[in-house]
Amino acid sequence: MSNSYGKLFKISTFGESHGRAVGVVLDGCPAGLDLDLEFIQNELDRRKPGQSKITTQRKEEDKIEIVSGIFEGKSTGTPIAMLVWNADARSKDYSHIADRYRPSHADFTYQEKYGVRDYRGGGRSSARETLARVAAGAIAKLFLAKYGIKINAYVSQVGGLSLQKSYKELNLEETENNIVRCPDPVMAEEMISLIDSVRKDCDTIGGVVSCVVQGTPVGLGEPVFDKLHAELGKAMLGINAVKGFEYGSGFEGVKMLGSQHNDAFYVEGDRIRTKTNYSGGIQGGISNGEDIYFRVAFKPVATLMKDQESINQEGEAVTVSGKGRHDPCVVPRAVPIVEAMTALVLADSLLRNKVIKL
Amino acid sequence: MSNSYGKLFKISTFGESHGRAVGVVLDGCPAGLDLDLEFIQNELDRRKPGQSKITTQRKEEDKIEIVSGIFEGKSTGTPIAMLVWNADARSKDYSHIADRYRPSHADFTYQEKYGVRDYRGGGRSSARETLARVAAGAIAKLFLAKYGIKINAYVSQVGGLSLQKSYKELNLEETENNIVRCPDPVMAEEMISLIDSVRKDCDTIGGVVSCVVQGTPVGLGEPVFDKLHAELGKAMLGINAVKGFEYGSGFEGVKMLGSQHNDAFYVEGDRIRTKTNYSGGIQGGISNGEDIYFRVAFKPVATLMKDQESINQEGEAVTVSGKGRHDPCVVPRAVPIVEAMTALVLADSLLRNKVIKL
Amino acid sequence: MSNSYGKLFKISTFGESHGRAVGVVLDGCPAGLDLDLEFIQNELDRRKPGQSKITTQRKEEDKIEIVSGIFEGKSTGTPIAMLVWNADARSKDYSHIADRYRPSHADFTYQEKYGVRDYRGGGRSSARETLARVAAGAIAKLFLAKYGIKINAYVSQVGGLSLQKSYKELNLEETENNIVRCPDPVMAEEMISLIDSVRKDCDTIGGVVSCVVQGTPVGLGEPVFDKLHAELGKAMLGINAVKGFEYGSGFEGVKMLGSQHNDAFYVEGDRIRTKTNYSGGIQGGISNGEDIYFRVAFKPVATLMKDQESINQEGEAVTVSGKGRHDPCVVPRAVPIVEAMTALVLADSLLRNKVIKL
Amino acid sequence: MSNSYGKLFKISTFGESHGRAVGVVLDGCPAGLDLDLEFIQNELDRRKPGQSKITTQRKEEDKIEIVSGIFEGKSTGTPIAMLVWNADARSKDYSHIADRYRPSHADFTYQEKYGVRDYRGGGRSSARETLARVAAGAIAKLFLAKYGIKINAYVSQVGGLSLQKSYKELNLEETENNIVRCPDPVMAEEMISLIDSVRKDCDTIGGVVSCVVQGTPVGLGEPVFDKLHAELGKAMLGINAVKGFEYGSGFEGVKMLGSQHNDAFYVEGDRIRTKTNYSGGIQGGISNGEDIYFRVAFKPVATLMKDQESINQEGEAVTVSGKGRHDPCVVPRAVPIVEAMTALVLADSLLRNKVIKL
Repeated sequence: MSNSYGKLFKISTFGESHGRAVGVVLDGCPAGLDLDLEFIQNELDRRKPGQSKITTQRKEEDKIEIVSGIFEGKSTGTPIAMLVWNADARSKDYSHIADRYRPSHADFTYQEKYGVRDYRGGGRSSARETLARVAAGAIAKLFLAKYGIKINAYVSQVGGLSLQKSYKELNLEETENNIVRCPDPVMAEEMISLIDSVRKDCDTIGGVVSCVVQGTPVGLGEPVFDKLHAELGKAMLGINAVKGFEYGSGFEGVKMLGSQHNDAFYVEGDRIRTKTNYSGGIQGGISNGEDIYFRVAFKPVATLMKDQESINQEGEAVTVSGKGRHDPCVVPRAVPIVEAMTALVLADSLLRNKVIKL
Repeated sequence: MSNSYGKLFKISTFGESHGRAVGVVLDGCPAGLDLDLEFIQNELDRRKPGQSKITTQRKEEDKIEIVSGIFEGKSTGTPIAMLVWNADARSKDYSHIADRYRPSHADFTYQEKYGVRDYRGGGRSSARETLARVAAGAIAKLFLAKYGIKINAYVSQVGGLSLQKSYKELNLEETENNIVRCPDPVMAEEMISLIDSVRKDCDTIGGVVSCVVQGTPVGLGEPVFDKLHAELGKAMLGINAVKGFEYGSGFEGVKMLGSQHNDAFYVEGDRIRTKTNYSGGIQGGISNGEDIYFRVAFKPVATLMKDQESINQEGEAVTVSGKGRHDPCVVPRAVPIVEAMTALVLADSLLRNKVIKL
Repeated sequence: MSNSYGKLFKISTFGESHGRAVGVVLDGCPAGLDLDLEFIQNELDRRKPGQSKITTQRKEEDKIEIVSGIFEGKSTGTPIAMLVWNADARSKDYSHIADRYRPSHADFTYQEKYGVRDYRGGGRSSARETLARVAAGAIAKLFLAKYGIKINAYVSQVGGLSLQKSYKELNLEETENNIVRCPDPVMAEEMISLIDSVRKDCDTIGGVVSCVVQGTPVGLGEPVFDKLHAELGKAMLGINAVKGFEYGSGFEGVKMLGSQHNDAFYVEGDRIRTKTNYSGGIQGGISNGEDIYFRVAFKPVATLMKDQESINQEGEAVTVSGKGRHDPCVVPRAVPIVEAMTALVLADSLLRNKVIKL
Repeated sequence: MSNSYGKLFKISTFGESHGRAVGVVLDGCPAGLDLDLEFIQNELDRRKPGQSKITTQRKEEDKIEIVSGIFEGKSTGTPIAMLVWNADARSKDYSHIADRYRPSHADFTYQEKYGVRDYRGGGRSSARETLARVAAGAIAKLFLAKYGIKINAYVSQVGGLSLQKSYKELNLEETENNIVRCPDPVMAEEMISLIDSVRKDCDTIGGVVSCVVQGTPVGLGEPVFDKLHAELGKAMLGINAVKGFEYGSGFEGVKMLGSQHNDAFYVEGDRIRTKTNYSGGIQGGISNGEDIYFRVAFKPVATLMKDQESINQEGEAVTVSGKGRHDPCVVPRAVPIVEAMTALVLADSLLRNKVIKL
């Protein structure tokens, strides 16, 4: 009951890291949309492991397969099921953690909650599940593109290295030009060096992904509980390793006075706009047509290549050995995931907004 | 379709600031719970306007009435409807804003989304709606108390005044002993002075509410999309004026290394615990039995007592005059709202967790 | 979690027979609809007790009050809460059944399920709850009228007296002209006599309500599980005392051959129509533009004016005495309830159908 | 948004008749259940085409594959995805119906609703989708077996041949001993003859499936809208070709007096029981512990082997030719589908009933 997101543009994901497959069923995609398989695969490629020296070296092809809901290249309004088969299963790798709880992983909580768990590679709690979101998010992007809505995420912080520029001072087209996905080339180099040195230390480090949505019409988002930023926040906090979310002025805005923070309205052509945008494009939970922007904090990944002291299911002291491959910093690969979840939120909001007025 | 929260312990709120009443229907409260009306009313009193010199001086009694779902003082498992009649309606007060868009309010977005709106006091977008959440949250608290779960929120920042102590260094029993609801008496005085001076300037200022949940059993929260912290985040971001949410190590955790951030397990009696708690009591989206703690950022309230330049529905330049009464800083009154939403999230999680295992 | 119906045009009802009030919150009604209070009250009057000699003689005024979601006579897109206060409570009447289980009532099952119940007048299980559906259904009718959709229910059977004519042979305008709500005046007289004699015997008898929906556009209803007739069936079976539902050819259609039952298509002007309509206006779960018609079976009401042997909560033999007032046949008053639930199903389907195509 | 059933034990199906695969995701199955693959496959075999001379001769192996949610043979509480690949696609077979509307099929309504459709074998509207329900229903049966709940469906009517015996007079173990799945061997022979003669006439005929649920605890089913029989009714009406549903006394009960119809309580050992069971095991929408029984009417299948006059998408007169293979009577293969949907309803009710009381 908990593996679904969305009310009208709705996804249900399934699959474990080392089960047969990971996949998603998208129910509610309107009929008549061109399902561009190449684009969907490309989004998955942005997420996949082994894409650069600063991501995990695990090799997975992650080829997506559409098994339903498509006819002659178009969506038919019926559920779109998509699958990626798990190639690099190698379950033997994981026998060493079968009975032990890795620190800051979900091993302990899953075991307690369910009384049974697929311990191989984290099973269902593995970030591998996010490929299903990226696949569905790619379709959401195709849908949003019909309405002129565009989403750009990028890495704005790694450890203490924080990009001080606003998204308006950056060329977001640069994001994909470096392996850390930071649109500032100078900062990108610094970030890559930092991650590389953390990697060599067999350690991990956190980061922040920023995201901008442009071209949103006025009116998306539902009062009271389903405010647009509440949906975005939940979607982001549902991504593995996320610890915080802020939009518009965020935590910094706390320090401001209302007279500074209020966004004055003005008229530009036939549009009502605001001079500043501390609101982050959302007022009263509803998009106001300005850019929506927000920041997502990711903790350092829990999987280290160092040995760690822990306990096993019997409560005995054990060592969790650091072997295999690890992701020294999750944010470069998190960029497409943030975009995908954002796209899913907006696609759902767009459909919900269609049934509001007479 | 958007005025509900919860899957099993579910609330639906209704009512406008200046309509006849504001209320809530709670569906899913288990049968047999003592519905302590005095406690519920007391929670509402913590939220109500006019309670101190640093909150809005509007006078509202906000007497709660239970109209269904109760029999001989106990819940019966049927929907519990509760109402507060709007006494201080004074609709005439609002004619001056009937056609104009107040900056950083929801006037513009509601008008565009629905084509019609009750402009009196913000109508449905008014924070007055939150009294319905507090009433339902009070029942959630009564339910949680049966399971030993306790929730404490407090003000940890006003403007630039930020309490540097962790909740463990504070006596949370002190929270209700001052009007700003900061458990540190020295900081409380400073905060009160700051708010008072902002109020005299006819301005407003932001703040942060921190919240701690103690006594949570292991196992609450649902993977994948309904992670416990994702539900908490959504619930907080659904409160008016909230701009950010972080839990555990939050945005600061970004700067840490995995080897610092990982919470080592140990055994204490018959419990498995963690030595540190950067995880914020939640791992893999599921509570691990440690304290859950998080921070919620509130922007400065948009209603000022200053005149502001704006536009009206026709796009003409108008002045929004600052008259009436205003809330110079929303966080003192937000404390019970944060607690209420937290209680609702946990009550729902608790019920959902009952149907997980054979 | 079970007191709601609808996905987009959604109602949540609350209230017990002898609690303070019975009411409903309608969430999802589009903004801009004229909420004709006189029409809503009139629908309630068609359902209310004491309206004729063949219905229960209980006197209840059932005056409806709208407490939210309305501004200057129009819906605003926010939740519409409506209430009827319980006037004729007289709780003392019910002390004689406090601990005993009335045969074929919900006393036993509620007690077992919840461990506590409001026994007065059946509490939540009372058909009094249906007034909330009629109030919300009235708004649904106002909404459907904008799209030219019209709903007519009528009594087609009482006990063994069954109207053999199809709805096409009847003048449905006649339905409200007699107290049994059968559009055939001759049959109506017979039905009234039968009910009256059953009433004099302190007994009750069953009946059938037929319903026709005209003016439905092609396309309402969702495959696979939410077929239009599945939604209608569920809505009807959710009405107290209903034992069966059939649409189109129904149970009789079982005896037909496919070559007889298939509805041949033809073109009439710019519409594609069918020559026969055994499909009942629905094919593959989706409306095809022909009339939708169905039949709903109501058992004889369980409340008799005769004494009945039963048991109490302790399992001891007791007599449930027949006193007070009773409804000898529920179908005349069920007509507006059937219409209301039909309207709610169609309003929801209409909104859901808006988000299907690009 | 419409391809799911259930709130807590929830299925989402996907796939078209001639797409790559048909499948289902079951979310909410409690952890720790033995997933007996042989049993699941056996249930599918009861549904599959070509199993006898009186069902369609289409050959499909329908081998089920579990792709997630299983670990060492047990459910893990995570989503269970299951797939059947479509072997006998032969899309060429269907070019003759690409642009034409088969009478009483969903061709016309899907085309109008979505503007595009997979016409091959009915696409999503094909009864082939029901294999996904049978697979999930098999797991529901395994779950219910843990609680002693047993479901038996059988064919009780074919055309005018109606079994007059109640289920209590029948040996339900006999059901699987003949190809028509009627537990009365004599009637079974007559039914088989009838279907065979209809088949030879290239025609089809309707039927009724009866179903009995034994071992249900008191308390399943939710007032008000989600009454147990309302859920069962919706689930049955969601099966292709179903035109009616009745439970307990059903449409016949209409003719009874309340004094005849009321089920008198008595005590048997430590159980409260009823002497008669016109209620069909459900009172006030909640199971009372007696047997639940109901009847489901199926129309004659629309696919004939006769030529039929119809129209195409352009509204031109065309002939729909009868070729290929057809199912002369759907009810023998509908028996496992009725059981599966019943199991899904009860599994969901069982989980929902766990969160009702303190």
